[in-house]
Amino acid sequence: MSKDNQVEAITSMEDDFAQWYTDVVTKTELVDYSPVKGFMVIRAYGYALWENIQAIFDKEFKKTGVKNCYFPLLIPESFLNKEKEHVEGFSPEVAWVTEAGGKTLEERLCIRPTSETIICSMYSKWLKSYRDLPFLYNQWCSVVRWEKTTRPFLRTAEFLWQEGHTVHETFEEAQAKTLEMLEIYRRVCEENLAMPVVVGEKSEKERFAGAHATYSIEALMHDGQALQSGTSHNLGDHFTKAFDIKFLGRDNKEQYGYSTSWGVSTRLIGGIIMVHGDNKGLKLPPRIAPTQAIIIPISQHKEGVIDAAGKLTEELAKKYRAEMDANENYSPGWKFNQYEMKGVPVRIEIGPKDIEKGQCVFVRRDTGEKLFVPLDQATDKLGEVLEDIQQNMYRMAKDMLVKKTSVAHNMDEFKKALEENPGYIKAKWCGCRECEDKIKEETGATLRNIPFDQSGVDGDTCVYCGGKADKVAYFARAY
Amino acid sequence: MSKDNQVEAITSMEDDFAQWYTDVVTKTELVDYSPVKGFMVIRAYGYALWENIQAIFDKEFKKTGVKNCYFPLLIPESFLNKEKEHVEGFSPEVAWVTEAGGKTLEERLCIRPTSETIICSMYSKWLKSYRDLPFLYNQWCSVVRWEKTTRPFLRTAEFLWQEGHTVHETFEEAQAKTLEMLEIYRRVCEENLAMPVVVGEKSEKERFAGAHATYSIEALMHDGQALQSGTSHNLGDHFTKAFDIKFLGRDNKEQYGYSTSWGVSTRLIGGIIMVHGDNKGLKLPPRIAPTQAIIIPISQHKEGVIDAAGKLTEELAKKYRAEMDANENYSPGWKFNQYEMKGVPVRIEIGPKDIEKGQCVFVRRDTGEKLFVPLDQATDKLGEVLEDIQQNMYRMAKDMLVKKTSVAHNMDEFKKALEENPGYIKAKWCGCRECEDKIKEETGATLRNIPFDQSGVDGDTCVYCGGKADKVAYFARAY
Repeated sequence: MSKDNQVEAITSMEDDFAQWYTDVVTKTELVDYSPVKGFMVIRAYGYALWENIQAIFDKEFKKTGVKNCYFPLLIPESFLNKEKEHVEGFSPEVAWVTEAGGKTLEERLCIRPTSETIICSMYSKWLKSYRDLPFLYNQWCSVVRWEKTTRPFLRTAEFLWQEGHTVHETFEEAQAKTLEMLEIYRRVCEENLAMPVVVGEKSEKERFAGAHATYSIEALMHDGQALQSGTSHNLGDHFTKAFDIKFLGRDNKEQYGYSTSWGVSTRLIGGIIMVHGDNKGLKLPPRIAPTQAIIIPISQHKEGVIDAAGKLTEELAKKYRAEMDANENYSPGWKFNQYEMKGVPVRIEIGPKDIEKGQCVFVRRDTGEKLFVPLDQATDKLGEVLEDIQQNMYRMAKDMLVKKTSVAHNMDEFKKALEENPGYIKAKWCGCRECEDKIKEETGATLRNIPFDQSGVDGDTCVYCGGKADKVAYFARAY
Repeated sequence: MSKDNQVEAITSMEDDFAQWYTDVVTKTELVDYSPVKGFMVIRAYGYALWENIQAIFDKEFKKTGVKNCYFPLLIPESFLNKEKEHVEGFSPEVAWVTEAGGKTLEERLCIRPTSETIICSMYSKWLKSYRDLPFLYNQWCSVVRWEKTTRPFLRTAEFLWQEGHTVHETFEEAQAKTLEMLEIYRRVCEENLAMPVVVGEKSEKERFAGAHATYSIEALMHDGQALQSGTSHNLGDHFTKAFDIKFLGRDNKEQYGYSTSWGVSTRLIGGIIMVHGDNKGLKLPPRIAPTQAIIIPISQHKEGVIDAAGKLTEELAKKYRAEMDANENYSPGWKFNQYEMKGVPVRIEIGPKDIEKGQCVFVRRDTGEKLFVPLDQATDKLGEVLEDIQQNMYRMAKDMLVKKTSVAHNMDEFKKALEENPGYIKAKWCGCRECEDKIKEETGATLRNIPFDQSGVDGDTCVYCGGKADKVAYFARAY
């Protein structure tokens, strides 16, 4: 076999998980390293995946009354400084514009690491009366955070995301919105990305800089590490006071609003790769796969094959993201490997013998199962199979999450579990920062969140200090 | 009438066109000024308009095989310097990041003013064989150009756009792609934005920095000034040579590719405002209007009115972007003015008398015409009316463009026409830079383009120097 006929090998995840990840993201052309250190190029295949994810979230946001806007890329230093915790959290990792239009600027401008400050400055200008509320705005954009060690999708100096920013009349409404958006994150991740998550509140230590409370969804990767996949913050009146976001209330008195912010990013793509992928490469959930079915003609030089495959493709493309690969430079075998690597949910083979029998062959990426499907039933059957793959991928991921979750009552159990079955450790925690820090120091595991579902751990003593504990928390090593 | 019942007045365009524009963009909440000088905030209404425009272009691009990607925001100074004309064109107006992550950078990074250089550096890495070609990629993003005098949408330090970047095997293919994308720009502008344009090639003076040839579509505003609304560049081998974009050709020899780039931006929104707007405010073409029909209940406190209006809205919203405004704080009269100002193509009134008669009232924004429509025909009728408005708006804009276009054979005619009927001057031009410069110096009019349609000007002498001239060119004062 010539080199052209081999799909480049991917390192097996058991041998070297980090290298497996790098191989998958680059060889499937999701992403490439750019010449600017820490910055990635999202290639067409990766971007198409992002567009599908975006479209789903965007629709869900809009259903709740959220509208999109666009706020400036650059933020004056004085704005960043207005909320004390916020500036401490972000200023070490921002990029500064100091010269522009041939001149040195009087005030440095940072490239947004997140946009609370610039958006709040506008909200302050727009808000007059309680009648104007709630403000429900979102933007899709890129942000820059100067990270030292970077990995495509997981941690890069620039990434794409959405950031929602709302203002409400009362603290309770802000809290309700914070949880509503968190629930959208959970639902879209589980239903569309087939990625089960643990939903809960972050500890004070892991709270967003300037937030009253931070909530997160946390997914679990094949290697047992957690990935924070979305966060929703109740900002209380921290930013509204710092930015003077006031309104005339129902009682005709001036009062401060309560704000929230919430975001998901291209990081989700990293999650999809590491939750579903295997040693053949990507495995994409049908609902977000750029190509849901790839039609590959067999013996395509023989009369009628290309015609039949083309006709089938045309039929399927009316309802699904279906494409044909009739490239003559590559063998069917090469293509099989190629599209398995790219994670296309269903491969459809059609050759002279199939045409004779009036059938085609479906091959599922999730199970490898082959199905012989009559041509006149292909459209309906593909719908069924894609749906079944979607459900099966979620089940498999959920099984993995459950299997990789251990319960620990003390640090011996904690460390043993983390070593023997890397993943989540569910344990009681007294709520003090010191125990949280010590656990990290001794095991590398961080407190992922305090789950809404507090069941499943007996006893009432802290896994670290043995003191009184009434909270269940999830711990894990994390990306 | 209380102040609440008055829609804020818009300056009339005859009194002060610049102020009219500012009033329209801010009072309709398309945009707001940000605290960062020269940067605008695109508000929800403006962004919804942009999303509709984007969706149409994006679909058209994808039909031609173009795929979206995302390239880094920041570009190393050394990259910008690789193409001589390019750096001269752009370096005076870029913003420089010099500090990041708490350190001074070794090499300055500029925020992309356009992405030829960073994209070409990736293309150089990706391209191996003629089999890989063409490269057909686009990105939707924001760019920064440090402009001194800014106006929302028309000229701002940051704006949103798309930039397509392609590489081809031959010069001819690159030229064909350049013109194909230009034709998409023309078609989308005329058919969807109802904005007629003059299509042609830019003079050497106005060429994109580093291009072999630049083509443009040029729209004409109410005040007789032209607006460059989209450009498409055949970059020849200028960038492929500077960035070493080579491939093994069909003859097994290494050769350079030929590239193109093309873009439209949020500037189009400025065009829509100034082509269609009137003294009542915006007038939005139905195909891109965020709200195509606004349903306003009359005497909404009376029994059955809100129900009937709600039912009608629900029915219409299945097929159109239709919304009801049942806000009790404002009178119907206030709402009429408000939605006229916002340019909603059709207002639908429904009150107790209408309900009795089983009808509603359509009021067209373009003509002010009232139509009494039986409720059971509202869905079909709205489709017809929206389509008719779309066509009528194009016709009105086209009439304006034709009326504001004069032919000149010498500078006396040129100056007289420009004074008496500000707009396009069609004239023969000898092709020399000096005449072009002198015309600008004496009249403020610049050469917009050399139209593909060369008809309509008799004689063969240059409007400025009287020398031999075989080209027809469009001149106008421009934004």
